[in-house]
Amino acid sequence: MKIVALAGGVGGAKLAHGLAQILSPEDLTVIVNTGDDFEHLGLTICPDLDTVCYTLAGLANSETGWGRVNETWNTISNIEKLGGPNWFRLGDQDFGTHIERTRRLKEGQSLSQITKDFCKAWGIKQTVLPMTDSPVRTIVDTDEGELAFQEYFVHRHCEPRVKGFRFDGVEVAEPASGAREAIESADAIVICPSNPWVSIDPILRVLSLTPAPLSHEERRKPIIAISPIIGGKTVKGPAAKMYAELGIEPSALAVAEHYRDLLTGFVLDIKDEQLSDKFRGKILATDTLMNSSADRARLAVDVLHFIGSL
Amino acid sequence: MKIVALAGGVGGAKLAHGLAQILSPEDLTVIVNTGDDFEHLGLTICPDLDTVCYTLAGLANSETGWGRVNETWNTISNIEKLGGPNWFRLGDQDFGTHIERTRRLKEGQSLSQITKDFCKAWGIKQTVLPMTDSPVRTIVDTDEGELAFQEYFVHRHCEPRVKGFRFDGVEVAEPASGAREAIESADAIVICPSNPWVSIDPILRVLSLTPAPLSHEERRKPIIAISPIIGGKTVKGPAAKMYAELGIEPSALAVAEHYRDLLTGFVLDIKDEQLSDKFRGKILATDTLMNSSADRARLAVDVLHFIGSL
Repeated sequence: MKIVALAGGVGGAKLAHGLAQILSPEDLTVIVNTGDDFEHLGLTICPDLDTVCYTLAGLANSETGWGRVNETWNTISNIEKLGGPNWFRLGDQDFGTHIERTRRLKEGQSLSQITKDFCKAWGIKQTVLPMTDSPVRTIVDTDEGELAFQEYFVHRHCEPRVKGFRFDGVEVAEPASGAREAIESADAIVICPSNPWVSIDPILRVLSLTPAPLSHEERRKPIIAISPIIGGKTVKGPAAKMYAELGIEPSALAVAEHYRDLLTGFVLDIKDEQLSDKFRGKILATDTLMNSSADRARLAVDVLHFIGSL
Repeated sequence: MKIVALAGGVGGAKLAHGLAQILSPEDLTVIVNTGDDFEHLGLTICPDLDTVCYTLAGLANSETGWGRVNETWNTISNIEKLGGPNWFRLGDQDFGTHIERTRRLKEGQSLSQITKDFCKAWGIKQTVLPMTDSPVRTIVDTDEGELAFQEYFVHRHCEPRVKGFRFDGVEVAEPASGAREAIESADAIVICPSNPWVSIDPILRVLSLTPAPLSHEERRKPIIAISPIIGGKTVKGPAAKMYAELGIEPSALAVAEHYRDLLTGFVLDIKDEQLSDKFRGKILATDTLMNSSADRARLAVDVLHFIGSL
């Protein structure tokens, strides 16, 4: 079964890793949000792309949910010592990724080509694509005004109250080379348990999977989503807080509503099974928490069986 | 006694450190070559400036002669893993310096202001100035054509045969703010045992200390140089090789000839004492090798006594 997974950071990366354990490498394409990308210290940083790649390569720091395992912090320590910006913690190995990517971007190479080469260097056999090679930047509208995503997310610890989102550059951004083809040839699209507002919406916008009507071919293709919200809370990240601040009760139900027109099926946690009656579409209730590598594989198997049953 | 020291990398940094051990901090200004600076991996790297600062701050790696002590190499290892340029070895702490400097340069700050702030952060009480805030780039003319200095020096290990040098941008480069004033108020100028061709000549050119005639004030000021060549060889670096390839027998004599019109006095190594007769000016023969911190201080004392005697 050929799968395209749409992923943001941690949650998306974990399920992508689960799917990678089950599917043949040529059968999995992960299309990753780049709305969180930003320019910092002169470098182009792609947090979600790196989290997905590091996770697939077994290089991710599973404790922090970002950055590399066995990391050192000497570059940022010296920057800090010199009075430079220290709010975005970058490890020494991680700096290497950003420096080399930025060098190649400045040479005019595309983010998707660079990502392809990085994946090869890291031994990743699956296809990992940025959603687009054009800059798209998520802007969070808050009670303190508009904030660039990382400013909101990392620098301000998601404290400002969210009023809405926009994705600078999304109107002119074309899907990265290979993304449309991967979707066309996929048997199903899996929307990973990532933040619907800031991780998945930008991808859907760039891929024109919403709000534009789907093509006949795409309409026949199962699209399923896994709720990142369990028992009204997110495992990680501000999705639940965002729902609440936007006046929507955070729940798996709210996530399914978010994607409503798009979904063929929806996966929620077994803890939320009582909500199943409230959905119109096909539902799978299962254990969606992914603490271990085995958990990821188990959820991937459940998801693939669910798709097979649709 | 107020001293301005003109310095390149290792040799210059060592004598600057010697002088710093003897003089009051307010009495020492080190003006550093920036002709070796280059853009690499998107960063502005200032090898001589960093070697001088790291040495004065006690942060230098005395074994390599460049970079930081207790350094780690995880950033460059990842860049290398990703297929990026690895010929210029930069450590993790060192990367922090280049990243933060480049960030501030791009904000429009001057190299001299940045250097001042870095010195403060590193606890350096002496004044360290880049020779200029404008880009000056040393180009080595070789039998293989023109090479940017670091390309010749590090990437090509000084292998191409030297035919000459030019300093891109030197005609329009103004001395860094404070450099002229430091020279005017100095009691003497010390040309450190750095490479005359590629470390000292660019500084002299920018400061108009040669070939333009000196002002009356400057002419009255002792200018002394310390030979970087001992027994026909350099302690470190390609100065002797350059002299030979340019058809000049490498020796302390050749160095003195190089600076001829400028010098009030000349310091050579005790091993070259037999050459003393061949000089017209004032000569000091002493132990100029600086292996230890104490050696540096001892040479500084000798140099200051020599200046006092002129």
